[in-house]
Parts: sequence; structure tokens; C-alpha cells
Amino acid sequence: MAEARIIDGKGFAAGLRARIGAAVEQLRTTHALVPGLAVVLVGEDPASAIYVRNKGEQTREAGMHSVTHRLDASTSQDELLRLVNQLNNDPSIHGILVQLPLPGHIDAQAVLSAIDPAKDVDGFHVVNAGRLSVGLPALVPCTPLGCMMLLKDTVKDLRGMHAVVVGRSNIVGKPMAQLLLQADCTVTIAHSRTRDLAGICREADILVAAVGRPEMVKGDWIKEGAVVIDVGINRVPARDPAAAAAGKTRIVGDVCYAEAASVAGAITPVPGGVGPMTIACLLANTVTAACRSAGVPLPAGIGL
Amino acid sequence: MAEARIIDGKGFAAGLRARIGAAVEQLRTTHALVPGLAVVLVGEDPASAIYVRNKGEQTREAGMHSVTHRLDASTSQDELLRLVNQLNNDPSIHGILVQLPLPGHIDAQAVLSAIDPAKDVDGFHVVNAGRLSVGLPALVPCTPLGCMMLLKDTVKDLRGMHAVVVGRSNIVGKPMAQLLLQADCTVTIAHSRTRDLAGICREADILVAAVGRPEMVKGDWIKEGAVVIDVGINRVPARDPAAAAAGKTRIVGDVCYAEAASVAGAITPVPGGVGPMTIACLLANTVTAACRSAGVPLPAGIGL
Repeated sequence: MAEARIIDGKGFAAGLRARIGAAVEQLRTTHALVPGLAVVLVGEDPASAIYVRNKGEQTREAGMHSVTHRLDASTSQDELLRLVNQLNNDPSIHGILVQLPLPGHIDAQAVLSAIDPAKDVDGFHVVNAGRLSVGLPALVPCTPLGCMMLLKDTVKDLRGMHAVVVGRSNIVGKPMAQLLLQADCTVTIAHSRTRDLAGICREADILVAAVGRPEMVKGDWIKEGAVVIDVGINRVPARDPAAAAAGKTRIVGDVCYAEAASVAGAITPVPGGVGPMTIACLLANTVTAACRSAGVPLPAGIGL
Repeated sequence: MAEARIIDGKGFAAGLRARIGAAVEQLRTTHALVPGLAVVLVGEDPASAIYVRNKGEQTREAGMHSVTHRLDASTSQDELLRLVNQLNNDPSIHGILVQLPLPGHIDAQAVLSAIDPAKDVDGFHVVNAGRLSVGLPALVPCTPLGCMMLLKDTVKDLRGMHAVVVGRSNIVGKPMAQLLLQADCTVTIAHSRTRDLAGICREADILVAAVGRPEMVKGDWIKEGAVVIDVGINRVPARDPAAAAAGKTRIVGDVCYAEAASVAGAITPVPGGVGPMTIACLLANTVTAACRSAGVPLPAGIGL
């Protein structure tokens, strides 16, 4: 059996960032429009600090306006809401991202709801979830948007394919299902309560795993030739027992890659598959938001 | 093979209306709260006129406050938006329903978007679609809400069942899928582009047909013992050729009832199944909206 084609998310994301850079340059020269992204970090979570730094760097590399607000962990909800409101009213800012998780004393839902839906580049606002659901132009959560870009690049015509999404989070599983449905796939959403998950997965022409459980999807869950999109990023002990004992780790997806690669037609690796798409899609969403707010057509190669 | 249990939507709807009547009485005496529904009809469409009259009658029969606005077909979009705004600000009105279809010169999406989401008892506003999608309390479109009530009454525990929804409209198919997912079903959404629709349907423990094509779902598409919810209401020529030639018609669902009833475990008839639930659920949504706006707990037996 042939090995699956490896879907190079890292390479695709680099190409997308390059297209975004060119689009930003064109928007600046043609429309005097500079897309601006504000990222808000509350507290000292080390992983969040790294994400926020990466987002800022990639935003600047694309030639966009980048602002990062780093607030103390003791920041009150009111203070945070005031900042969000200020950013909502700032014409140089087209995208607002409040890095999650927020400290426990802050109601994350209240903060996300306060973001102007037109600037909600994370796509977490109920207005964007609703617009996506009913088929109106929306800002789509970055990870499923990235998955969809990789799928469209891999498959070309998704119509009539049976897509199975494992996982039903608001951030990945549900919006992923909506995008696949818009692309005319038959869509099944499976989850922790699903009976015969392996059997359901085996029907998938397109299998999207987004459950956060290391290597849960086995090779014999996959139909021969299926396209497998692995959203999981799970840290597990290193293979080498001595290294593992010393606390060394490695990153694996939700799919057992070695097994799956010998059955699937195409598969995203972890790392280097879906992961690099997320920040690139955040930049793409910011360009989209800027173009919509300015009434300027979105340059080609940025959206779905 | 045993004949399927017939799911008596007409009877269930009558019971629901009785519970709503009792709840309205209780809200009036205990909280001085009288739920109010405003229905807006633009133009002279005969079917719409009948629906609107039925809605008004059933609202009054439940002891609720009922207002019907009948506007001329030439009413401008601005006039209609002014009326919606006035109803949004009217404290005696808890539910607003603008009867569709609207005349061609009016942008229905603009009108539906103007309704306060808290009064959107049709559940068509993007905020309600989004709230349903992310699992926040929402006003849910009446037909899928009614289907879900019948299902919960029939099945008791839906968890882990495989539900297949045929049809992906914003009014029925998509919200139905969301409700089934919330009830922990594995959910497949099929539609006109689905390959091997019969095979997909045969996997369903719960099959919801909402496509608007007379008797499209055949008996051999149904797994033995499945629960079949037929949302279709299609008018076809009468069986008797002479009567048909004279223009007589009859109503059939999207499911070939006679065939299906010999395979399914339970099935909704057409008429008398899902149909009668829709207006009853409109009343239920109005009571829900009134209770939420007043900060009063919803009486038992009204919601899901």
C-alpha cells in the first residue's frame, strides 16, 4: 500500500503568510489601509506569553500594525472591558484577540461578547458563530479555517464527500462541521458519547480529529485513501525511556500517525500540519476584517 | 414485523398548549406577567394569512396577550423596521414574529436582524443561531424544537444514538442537528449533494427528514426499529384519479409513510405529527422569552 501524501501545513502556512504580506503591501499602497491586530494578554501564563509573542512577531513580519497589551493578572474585568471597548473604537485596529485562558476572576464569555463582532478575529463571538451557521459572511475560528484551507488545497472538490469530525468544541469541531457542510460534504459529528467510533470514522472520506487525546485514532479506523486532518497537539513522554525518565517529551496528534499514514490517501503530520496554520489564519482574518470594514475587496489567496 | 408506534404530535401539541395555558395563568397570578406575542403580516398571501390567524387564535386561547399587525403589501422596508423597533421597545410584547415570505422589495434578512434577539421567538436571528451553536440559552426555531420535544418524549435517553438529519435549512435542518448534538447524539447532516443517501439513512437510529420532497425517503432506507421524524408537508394530487383530475389534493410527508411504518420503531404521521407542534412551540418560546426578560423561572413542561 502506498504511503499517504503528507499535507505540508508548515509550507502552506508560509505561502499564506507570503500572500498576506503581499496583500498588506497592496492594501497600503492602493487603499492606504494598514490592517491592525491588537492582542491582549492578562497574566503570566508561560504558554500564552509565547503564543502572544509569536502572534505579534508574525503580524509585524506581514507588514501589519501590531499592538500587544500585557495586563497584570490582577486586572479587573471592568478594566479589561474598558480596554476592549477602547480597541472596538480604535480605527487603526481591525482585529482584537483576547488570549485565553483568562484569570479565574474574569468571565471570559462576557469579555468575548464585548468584542465588536466585526473585529472578532478569533471568531468566538456568538454573532460570528451564528453568521457561520446560517451562511452569512463571518469571521471563522482560525484552526478550522486553517484545516479547511489545507483540505481545499488537497482535495480540490469536496462536494458529496463524507466528512467525519471527531470532537464538538466551539473552537474547532462545531465550526469545522459548518465549513464542511458549506462545502457540500455530508457531515457527521462524533464525540465522547459516540457508539462505535471506529466504525463511524471508517466511513469518512475526510476525517478531522479534534479531541485532544494522544493517538486515539488508530490506523484501522481509517478508510483506505481517506484524507486525515489531525488537529491534536498533545505532549507525551519521549520514546526513549531514559529520556522520558529525565522528563523529555514529544508532540503527537490525536491520530496514530505511523499507522494512519499507511492507509490514508493524505494526512497532516504533527507537528508541521494544522498547527502552523492557526496564526497564519489569524493574520488572514485580520486582513479580512480590515477589508470588510473599509469596503475593499479581499485580495485573492487570503480567504477560503 | 410489528407496525411502528405512531408519534401523536397533535395530541402532544394539545398537551403542551394546555401546560402553556396553565403556566400563563400561574405567571399572571404569581408574577403579574402576561406573555405577549406580536405577529406582523405584510401583504395578502393566503397561506400566510391563515397561519397568522391560527397563531393569534392559539395565543389568545393560551391566555396570552396577542397583537396582530396586518400591513399593506406596499409597506416600505423603513416602515416595517419602524414597527419592529416599536415592538422591540414595547414592554407588553415578549415575542415578535414577522411572517415570511415578505414582499420582494423588502430585505427579509435586514428585518429579521432588526428584531431584538431576546424577542426573536422564531429563533431566526443570527444571535440565536450562534447561541444555540455554542450551547448558550437561545430561542430555538419552532419546528426543530417541536421535533426535539417529540423525540425526547418517545426515546427518553438519546445519548449515543446516531441521528441523521436529511436537509440543511437554517430553519429546520441545521438547528435540528445542533439540538441532537446537545442531546449527545452522533449527528450526520445529509442533503441534496449526499452520495448514497439511502445508505446514510439506513445507519440512523433517529431519522429526521426535512427536505420538502414528497415521500422521498423509502421504507428500505430505514433501519429496523428507528425513530422517524417527518418534517415534510407536501401537497400532492389525490389518490383517486377522478378526484385528482378535479384538482383534489392530499398532504404527504417527506417519508413514504406506509413503507416506513412497517420498519420503523416509531414514526410521526403527516398530517398530525410535527405540523401541530410548530405553533405550540411558538407559544412556548413566547413564554420562555417572557420569563427570561422578567427574570422568572420557566414553569415546568414548557421547554426541552
